[in-house]
Parts: sequence; structure tokens; C-alpha cells
Amino acid sequence: MQTLKSLKNIKSSYIREILHVANSPDIISLAGGLPCLNAFPMRVIEKSLLDIVENKQYFQYGETRGHEPLIEQLRLKYAVDSSQGILITSGAQQAIDLCTRAFIERGSNIIVESPSYLGALQAFDLAGANVLSVEQECDGPNIGELELLFKRGDITFFYAVPDFHNPTGCCWSLAKRQKVAELCVEYNVLFIEDAPYRELRFLGEELPTVTSFCADHSIILYSYSKIIAPSIRVGAVIFPMRYLGDLYKLKQVMDLHTSVPMQEIVNQVLRDNSYATNLSRIRNLYYERYLALKNELVEIETIKDDFSEVQGGMFIWLKLNGVCARVLTSTID
Amino acid sequence: MQTLKSLKNIKSSYIREILHVANSPDIISLAGGLPCLNAFPMRVIEKSLLDIVENKQYFQYGETRGHEPLIEQLRLKYAVDSSQGILITSGAQQAIDLCTRAFIERGSNIIVESPSYLGALQAFDLAGANVLSVEQECDGPNIGELELLFKRGDITFFYAVPDFHNPTGCCWSLAKRQKVAELCVEYNVLFIEDAPYRELRFLGEELPTVTSFCADHSIILYSYSKIIAPSIRVGAVIFPMRYLGDLYKLKQVMDLHTSVPMQEIVNQVLRDNSYATNLSRIRNLYYERYLALKNELVEIETIKDDFSEVQGGMFIWLKLNGVCARVLTSTID
Repeated sequence: MQTLKSLKNIKSSYIREILHVANSPDIISLAGGLPCLNAFPMRVIEKSLLDIVENKQYFQYGETRGHEPLIEQLRLKYAVDSSQGILITSGAQQAIDLCTRAFIERGSNIIVESPSYLGALQAFDLAGANVLSVEQECDGPNIGELELLFKRGDITFFYAVPDFHNPTGCCWSLAKRQKVAELCVEYNVLFIEDAPYRELRFLGEELPTVTSFCADHSIILYSYSKIIAPSIRVGAVIFPMRYLGDLYKLKQVMDLHTSVPMQEIVNQVLRDNSYATNLSRIRNLYYERYLALKNELVEIETIKDDFSEVQGGMFIWLKLNGVCARVLTSTID
Repeated sequence: MQTLKSLKNIKSSYIREILHVANSPDIISLAGGLPCLNAFPMRVIEKSLLDIVENKQYFQYGETRGHEPLIEQLRLKYAVDSSQGILITSGAQQAIDLCTRAFIERGSNIIVESPSYLGALQAFDLAGANVLSVEQECDGPNIGELELLFKRGDITFFYAVPDFHNPTGCCWSLAKRQKVAELCVEYNVLFIEDAPYRELRFLGEELPTVTSFCADHSIILYSYSKIIAPSIRVGAVIFPMRYLGDLYKLKQVMDLHTSVPMQEIVNQVLRDNSYATNLSRIRNLYYERYLALKNELVEIETIKDDFSEVQGGMFIWLKLNGVCARVLTSTID
């Protein structure tokens, strides 16, 4: 028995494949968004694990939509009102897959930024989406190009990472956030806002989410991989309430529910008094690393104009003019 | 934007929906396979959590195929040779969904036992499978009926739970295990063997898996929900090596990888000296409960002949002649 032909077209993620190399202690990896080990709030994680082990109920089957104390906490954190639902996912990658399975069938037209997050493209390809792309400018998508695509009238959703984009580091301006939201409402296109890096701002002022301007036309995906720890695999998805029933059924099919002990870690870290202090510590940590890399790059005459400065997150985008990145990597090997 | 029409046909699991009632301490729930809280190996879980928190690396992104020490442990436990691959999943439900997405497209013909596990049927329905069924007799599937279905020549896979079936408790005889394996090889049908209850035998002799008779035509799904704890969401899938690449890509799309701390709990529990003793304690616990329920049922004149005795697992199947179970539940409410 053969696996489906559609699987043959999916590329495995190169970034995931080199993880065992990237994780080696003698490597400084610039390849993927691996958080710094010193960023993890280990003291609160330890405290929460000690609490968890005292409560056998945390090891029983949990509810599909998520661990109730965490959901309550997220309602406060993101000011979620009764018109929106929350579902806890096993990382934001599962949230991307969940949205894909809820809306995309073979041939559905969707829009992504160019370039876009590899893990999302894999999910869209697997579902057989027809992936259209919009140019990413330094302050967000090219609006004229986006509106032309929206005018086709057959777009299922527009997936984007407006805060400290993976892989470019781009952060959308306020004006583009508002304009994209306006267009999504006008053309009735769903916006999928992927926000894993949003809290990692180290320069400039925090901007509102695109979702805050078009909540009824938007689904926002949060991740706790970058602000707590990735291996706990906890994310959250917030959506217009009308989608609750279908997303709930999909989550049942996908894994019944997300690990309750891991959800309780997130709950405790978010509630802890140290949360704000720790977040500012993490931001400083990434700011220092960003400065170190930037200061090295500007010293190199041939590439100093080929990258853009960023205000947060884990990525900068360096153009290698006329050089293939994969060949360069092999050469360094 | 509407969710896909195909989602409308999926039934939500009634058993999952009543979980918050089933989990209430003043309820003795006979509704779903909720393990007994006293079955969880809390001492070893506690010890492993203390180890985990000492190792920051366990909180970093993990490898897609699973946590290496756990994979090694499972290779020994299940005597997996080099012709087979292992992938760790976020519970066995994800393993069912993984196999579904690897092999089923809209209209694919698959076979299940009648009745079958609700969570598997949801996944098959979502993928648009044409679900055929084979009668379950007291010692396994009706072989004549199964062979007739196999003879059609267009069967993608046969999904079954040969050990202490959910929901009937049925355990396949050795003869039927061998015969089904033989037919799968003869007609080149893939066998999906779901084995979450396999280690919960409290009577009789352990029988070989169906997979052991047709390893090149079979994928076996293991769960640690019933022998360790469900909320940790760890399962494993063992398959012919030729499927590794595609299953690996699917797992990347689905959630990148399973929670590393939760995988390390399974690793430590399986390696601990207390494992065998604890397993026999759990078997006794479920045997006592089975006897208590059975002894009550045989006292009731009108139903004493309407259920079958079982040798393990968490289920007995009681026929309510002429009464709708859902109506009965509402009446008791």
C-alpha cells in the first residue's frame, strides 16, 4: 500500500532536519528560531512542576478546548470578549494545521507574504492549496498587490506574520495593519495572524494586532515557544465564536487535547509575579544578540547594505547576492 | 468565510463532551475509557519531573521523530528491528490521524470492525473515507466477510483493535490473528493495529500482535495513556521503514514534535525497576473493578445474558435490548 501522492510534493523542513546539529553546544546556529536556553523561566517551571505532581487530576484526560485555568488566564491577557472563542493547541504549528484543515480544500486560493514561514507553507501544500503571494515591503505587504488579489473574489484566507516575521524580521506599520484589516472586511477575506514573536519587541512601540481592527474576520495564533519554552508544545488560537464547533471537532480528531501538565506550566508562568520582569530580561537578551550580529555584519563591506534592521523577534534577513545559501552552508561544513 | 462542508458531517464525540461530568469526583463514570487516578505511577512521574527540570535542554525544540532515549527504549520493549521505523506521537489519537492523512483520500475504501472506536471513525470520516465494516464475533472479525471485502481489490487499510477492543472488550483469538495477517499479505492490504489496552490483560495468556505475523503489511499504534497517564499525550507508531519519510513530514506539519518533558516521563517510567510491579498492580485494579461490575450485572435477571466476559482492558459491552442508551442516560439524569 502506497502513501498518498500528495505527500511526495511536500518538502521536509531543512531547518528541522539540521536541528540535531543546531542543538549541539559548540554550534552558534543562525539557522532556525531556536530560543536561547537562558531565556526559559526555569524557576517558575520548576515550581509549577512541583504543584502539578501534587495533583493527580492533572494526569487524567483533559478537556478538548483546553485547561480551564489557562483559558481564563488567556481571556484576561488578550482581552478576549464573548464574541470570540479560545482553543489551546499543541504548539502554534498545530494551530496553523487546524486552520488549514478547517478552511482549505484542494485548489483553495490563499495568500501568503513572500517569503513566508516554512512550516505554514508545508501545511498549505499538504492541503493542496493554491498559494498566491504578496510582496513584503519593509513596513508590511504591498497593499496595491494585495487588493488586486482580494478583488479576484475567491480568496480563502491571507496568512501573515505581522510582528517580527519569520524569516525576514519585518514588522508591519500601524497604517498597513489598519489597511489590511479594512480590506479583509471589505472583501470578506479571513486573516490568519500568526503572532509567535509579538512579545519579543526590544525597540520601538508595541503596535495593535491586525486582528484588533477586524476581529470578526480574523483568527490569531499565539505560541508560548518563544516566551516560555518550545518543547512544552503549547499554543492558543482565538477566533470568531461561529467557528468554535468545527475547530473543536478538528482538535478532537487531531489529538483529543493538549498535554495538561504542559498547559499548567503556561498557566503558572503567565500568572507569576515574575512574568513581566522575565519578559524584559528575555527582550534584553535578544537585543544584545541582535546588536552583536548586526555589528559584525556592518563591518563586512560587501554585505553591509544587504540586510534590514529589526525591532524585535529572532530573525534578520540577509541577502546573499548571487550566492546560494545551501551551497554556502556546505562550504562552511 | 465558511469552514469546509466536510466538517459538518463529523460528529463530535459524545464521550469527550461529557468528560467534565465524568471527571467529577461524585460520579462513577462507565461512559469512556478514563483510567483510574490510582493507576498512575506518581512516584516515578515525580522523580522524572525533578530530573527534567534539572536539564534545560529538555525544554528546547526536540526532534520530529521523537526523543532519542525513548525511541531506543521502545526499540527494546517491542523488539523493533531495522526494517521498521518508530515515530513518537502526541497520543495514539494523533497516530490514527497520521495514518489517515498518509493513506486516505476522499473515497478511499477502508474496513473497520463493527462497532469501532469513535475517535478513529471521526478521523476516517474527516478524510472522506468510504468506511466498510466487518462483523465482530466473540473471537475477532468474521473471516469470510473480511475476505469478501479484501477480494474487491480496492481496500486501503483494515483498522482494528485486537486486544480488549473499545468499546466491546473483545480479544481476538490466536487463529484469527494469524488468519487476518495472512489475508493482509495475500491481498496486499495494510493492517492498522491499534493497541492501547494490550498491556491491561488480567486473565488468560498474552497473545502475539497481529503485526508480528505481517510486519511488512502493518502499522501498530501504542499509547501510554492507559499504562502511564492520558494527559501526558504520548503514543508511538511502528511501521515498515519505507513509510518513514512521509510520516516524518506529516508529523512536522502536524505539531513539529511531541512535548519532550512528557516523552521523558514515558522514558523514565518504562525504564524504572518498578515498571513490571506497577503494571501488575494496575491489572489487578482493573480486574477488581471488572469483577465488581460483572457481579452486579449478573444479578439483574433481564440483562444477565446480554454482555460478554472479557480478559482485560477497560470495556464490557452490554446490549440494551430495545432501549436507546441516550434516552436511558437522560432518564437517569
